[in-house]
Amino acid sequence: MRFGIIGAGRIGKIHAGNVAAHKDCKLAFIADADAAAAASLAAATGAKVATIEEILASPEVDAIAICAPTDMHADLIDRAAKAKKAIFCEKPIDLDADRIAQTLEVVKANGAALMVAFNRRFDPNFAEVRKRIAAGEIGEIEIVAITSRDPGPPPISYIARSGGLFRDMMIHDFDMARFLLGEEPVSVSAFGSSIVDKAIGEAGDVDTAVVILQTATGKVAQISNSRRATYGYDQRVEIHGSKGMLSAANVKESTVEFAGAGGYTTDKALNFFLERYAGAYRGELGAFVDAVKAGKEPSPNGEDGLKANRLADAAYLSWKTGQVVKLG
Amino acid sequence: MRFGIIGAGRIGKIHAGNVAAHKDCKLAFIADADAAAAASLAAATGAKVATIEEILASPEVDAIAICAPTDMHADLIDRAAKAKKAIFCEKPIDLDADRIAQTLEVVKANGAALMVAFNRRFDPNFAEVRKRIAAGEIGEIEIVAITSRDPGPPPISYIARSGGLFRDMMIHDFDMARFLLGEEPVSVSAFGSSIVDKAIGEAGDVDTAVVILQTATGKVAQISNSRRATYGYDQRVEIHGSKGMLSAANVKESTVEFAGAGGYTTDKALNFFLERYAGAYRGELGAFVDAVKAGKEPSPNGEDGLKANRLADAAYLSWKTGQVVKLG
Amino acid sequence: MRFGIIGAGRIGKIHAGNVAAHKDCKLAFIADADAAAAASLAAATGAKVATIEEILASPEVDAIAICAPTDMHADLIDRAAKAKKAIFCEKPIDLDADRIAQTLEVVKANGAALMVAFNRRFDPNFAEVRKRIAAGEIGEIEIVAITSRDPGPPPISYIARSGGLFRDMMIHDFDMARFLLGEEPVSVSAFGSSIVDKAIGEAGDVDTAVVILQTATGKVAQISNSRRATYGYDQRVEIHGSKGMLSAANVKESTVEFAGAGGYTTDKALNFFLERYAGAYRGELGAFVDAVKAGKEPSPNGEDGLKANRLADAAYLSWKTGQVVKLG
Amino acid sequence: MRFGIIGAGRIGKIHAGNVAAHKDCKLAFIADADAAAAASLAAATGAKVATIEEILASPEVDAIAICAPTDMHADLIDRAAKAKKAIFCEKPIDLDADRIAQTLEVVKANGAALMVAFNRRFDPNFAEVRKRIAAGEIGEIEIVAITSRDPGPPPISYIARSGGLFRDMMIHDFDMARFLLGEEPVSVSAFGSSIVDKAIGEAGDVDTAVVILQTATGKVAQISNSRRATYGYDQRVEIHGSKGMLSAANVKESTVEFAGAGGYTTDKALNFFLERYAGAYRGELGAFVDAVKAGKEPSPNGEDGLKANRLADAAYLSWKTGQVVKLG
Repeated sequence: MRFGIIGAGRIGKIHAGNVAAHKDCKLAFIADADAAAAASLAAATGAKVATIEEILASPEVDAIAICAPTDMHADLIDRAAKAKKAIFCEKPIDLDADRIAQTLEVVKANGAALMVAFNRRFDPNFAEVRKRIAAGEIGEIEIVAITSRDPGPPPISYIARSGGLFRDMMIHDFDMARFLLGEEPVSVSAFGSSIVDKAIGEAGDVDTAVVILQTATGKVAQISNSRRATYGYDQRVEIHGSKGMLSAANVKESTVEFAGAGGYTTDKALNFFLERYAGAYRGELGAFVDAVKAGKEPSPNGEDGLKANRLADAAYLSWKTGQVVKLG
Repeated sequence: MRFGIIGAGRIGKIHAGNVAAHKDCKLAFIADADAAAAASLAAATGAKVATIEEILASPEVDAIAICAPTDMHADLIDRAAKAKKAIFCEKPIDLDADRIAQTLEVVKANGAALMVAFNRRFDPNFAEVRKRIAAGEIGEIEIVAITSRDPGPPPISYIARSGGLFRDMMIHDFDMARFLLGEEPVSVSAFGSSIVDKAIGEAGDVDTAVVILQTATGKVAQISNSRRATYGYDQRVEIHGSKGMLSAANVKESTVEFAGAGGYTTDKALNFFLERYAGAYRGELGAFVDAVKAGKEPSPNGEDGLKANRLADAAYLSWKTGQVVKLG
Repeated sequence: MRFGIIGAGRIGKIHAGNVAAHKDCKLAFIADADAAAAASLAAATGAKVATIEEILASPEVDAIAICAPTDMHADLIDRAAKAKKAIFCEKPIDLDADRIAQTLEVVKANGAALMVAFNRRFDPNFAEVRKRIAAGEIGEIEIVAITSRDPGPPPISYIARSGGLFRDMMIHDFDMARFLLGEEPVSVSAFGSSIVDKAIGEAGDVDTAVVILQTATGKVAQISNSRRATYGYDQRVEIHGSKGMLSAANVKESTVEFAGAGGYTTDKALNFFLERYAGAYRGELGAFVDAVKAGKEPSPNGEDGLKANRLADAAYLSWKTGQVVKLG
Repeated sequence: MRFGIIGAGRIGKIHAGNVAAHKDCKLAFIADADAAAAASLAAATGAKVATIEEILASPEVDAIAICAPTDMHADLIDRAAKAKKAIFCEKPIDLDADRIAQTLEVVKANGAALMVAFNRRFDPNFAEVRKRIAAGEIGEIEIVAITSRDPGPPPISYIARSGGLFRDMMIHDFDMARFLLGEEPVSVSAFGSSIVDKAIGEAGDVDTAVVILQTATGKVAQISNSRRATYGYDQRVEIHGSKGMLSAANVKESTVEFAGAGGYTTDKALNFFLERYAGAYRGELGAFVDAVKAGKEPSPNGEDGLKANRLADAAYLSWKTGQVVKLG
């Protein structure tokens, strides 16, 4: 499968490296408005620099990986779908759910394969949890608890651009909640404040938030987010079911333990997403390639992307109104 | 300090044993409507059987431990306060908050010392967490997460009598949340369902519930309760602050680990409250004795009991209305 | 069962407290050369002060607990056996194996019940490991690894008096190795040095030692001892068998964990034997009482005491000669 | 740095993959007596097939990676040294220590860079332990304890060919002991038996062994080996020093934990060396490349290889004679 990658920034570099290393893939082209970034990444991966137009038009390209800024995603998906390319797109498809819905129509009309890159589904630990839930290890799900804390807050300038904590950060947890619950949430209640950095509150956003999702059958997901964690990137899930509990702990920097007068000390959790989810990024690319080759719908797909955005929108509304928001 | 214990049931036996073993205490009398139960416990602890009236009137009694059914608590407190006894009372003071408030007036008017036995504050692990929070180890509190799961549901007959999950079971967690937050909650949002046992739902109660408390400064407590845990009595707290996280894990049956073809397996958590909180019951008695001897207000006191009940009432209202309930 | 306790020092106090609290026991008398110590302990436990002679002669005494200095043990056992008392004796019976053998003859000739107080067999964690080995959970034993480290070295004056590390400290591990191996060692190899405190070496002893025991069928026990551990009293076992591994970890001061910029930190191990083995001391007394009441041989018995001493002697010889020492 | 790899078997494939992926390396040639194996690996890595002679003679080759059978190692090192190639050689250099010494003379005479691939030094966990010891975190070393257990025994045919457990398997632990002790052992005592598989004993070898090393200053290393572990590849170290303990636990298949009626269960340790030491293999190649590029002596070098072999020889002698063997 021959790839064109649009975007040579931080996440573009990760996907470019994984495409170049994948046994069934060839990294053909890289496009970026920053010519130097495109050239540098192309040199490192054996690809050629091209424009977006050239990539979309090239018969040597089977699949597009969209790693450009969020506000370009929907338009690029539309164009790639019309160009009959398989599409791997970074989350979110757009900050606006209606725009996402329009794009999904275009994807559908053109019979395009679209994967939305919710990388955490492919983390080996979370994937193992999902697999065991599906195998019935804990029976019927009762409560899903997700803890997700970044090591530190982003720049204030990023807050507005990103759509805020619910749409930028917790969107991963909304997808994870759906992935683990195995049912759609029907209500959303959000609670949040800006106690890490007041400037975040002044920018209209929260930095500390808890959200409760409920499904029609009474299952509950509780999601806890913070823009601060002093002990590394905190990424855990815990699922209670009728037969027991499954949890996935953080991955630590090493298995080394020191014991001394202050007690027993182990390492911090891996620092941030590049470290923690290195394997997940490889895994999601592999899943995309496998699905496209097999002619199957990639998972998570555009619909998953849309549903996560709708949960984020509902969370914002709940937080602003102080009310429980019903979905659907 | 000479004690009269009212109630020779399961919890009465625990307190009787601890009073008898405490170096500064003498267990003088035991009263119970069930004469055989009173006689048996008196024999085991070297106490005498007496009526409630005799205990309250006796000059040989300094303190009363109320271990009778809940609906007798408030009345017994009133009478003990008027009899100028120090009062150690099992939670809750009453299921009705107004009735509690009336009793607290009586306590106050008589200058009585009253401790409400929220035993978990005296669990060595939770007490250690509280101590370290107070010492500033994790800076400013952001999120308090409490997980509390019973090994199995009580009989349906108990559900109505007990006031339901929020007033009977989660009341401990409301107190723990207040204990750890160090601030009063100003809003309560409750979510629950009966997915462990439908009969609980038919009785008008929940068996699985999540509650969110918020304080005026934006701190959040999330409490998760279930009437079912296959791996023992699940009693954990996790507190996030500006400088780090403190957590208290379950106490397991032993430190033994087996490693084999199925992985590494450690023991279940201690079975239920009698096992897990044996030390906490001793500790709370000790704290009561120390406070009374020093002429200090016991902690937790009647006000703490009232506040926990009001949180439970608010949780019920929130659950029934699907709305966030504001306090105060 | 009515007890006379000989010795009101640190260990005498523990056993006195446990006897006084045991439902089937009465603590009748306490003897100690230090009259004040005897009086104080008697007052605290409701016992009477008596001389050794009075205790041995008293028809009100069924059992003797010997908590006197080591050089008095054998003689007291002889006298108690002749007085037809059941005998609970602190380890070791004597520092000299021949003397122990003589005493065991006296015990046998008088049909006396004798338990040697290897308390660790009754630690709930180690007892659980033994139970599971016996149940076949790890199949055939291959390697037993025992780690035993004191929090700090004893006074130099204690070194000579105690018989040295192998006879005083590692003797517990020799018993534990026999307990877990389920076979008798046939060879002993000892390695040691004084790297914690040179004065210990100058006194002719080691403070850091490793011993290897082998059985006739090829099973191996490796024992590691040190007079220093900065993180609490280190008491662990790990047993490998054909079907898996069983281990017992240290008991920590609490289940509290702190996570911060320095990683994840849990508490130290319990400080020393009084804390770690509080339950084991209660358990061994209970086992003694049960055995005597049932007319069964107590376990561990005098033969177990003798065998542990012979392993300690062999370890000293091996360490001094640099040779493997064959037993039997 | 342009590599020729001699040997396209299991370990040759690992090094070929790492060389091909290393940013500063080019995998030029692969040689193997099995033409199909060489061709297949060459195709997978973009290298060419060549004979050993061609590789040694080629001006397009800077470094040789020796992944051939052990009995070819010393001869290949000699030839590569004379051909002025940098040499990366799988352990051991030879089963015969005198032969190793001869080869080291050739290496020295030709000024060749030689690394002996003791991969475990580059395991991130063990490397971290070493780094912290060197930084003084636990003060002066007292006891090094190494546990190393394979998931299952090799075929009997491998036993004789490999030189036996001490030279084939425990040689890694001898190197690890030297790496962690920071001092040379002066005595070796070995204890072993064949309790996993009698056929191993009949072939003159052990499958279960414990070895004690002592240094001149009294430090002790205890190494425990078995050809069987039901719970994955068991690879742990624990180091006690004057200021505390450092340990490195096994790496498990995931961080997932299940809690149910049987307790809490986590995954097995990673299966075997290919999984556990994937990072270590990359790391050792990187260290070799860095040393050669910088004109520095690689570490571990030929002398480290020789010393580990001499410890293995001493262990065999100790095991056969039942005596402590003094070194040097």
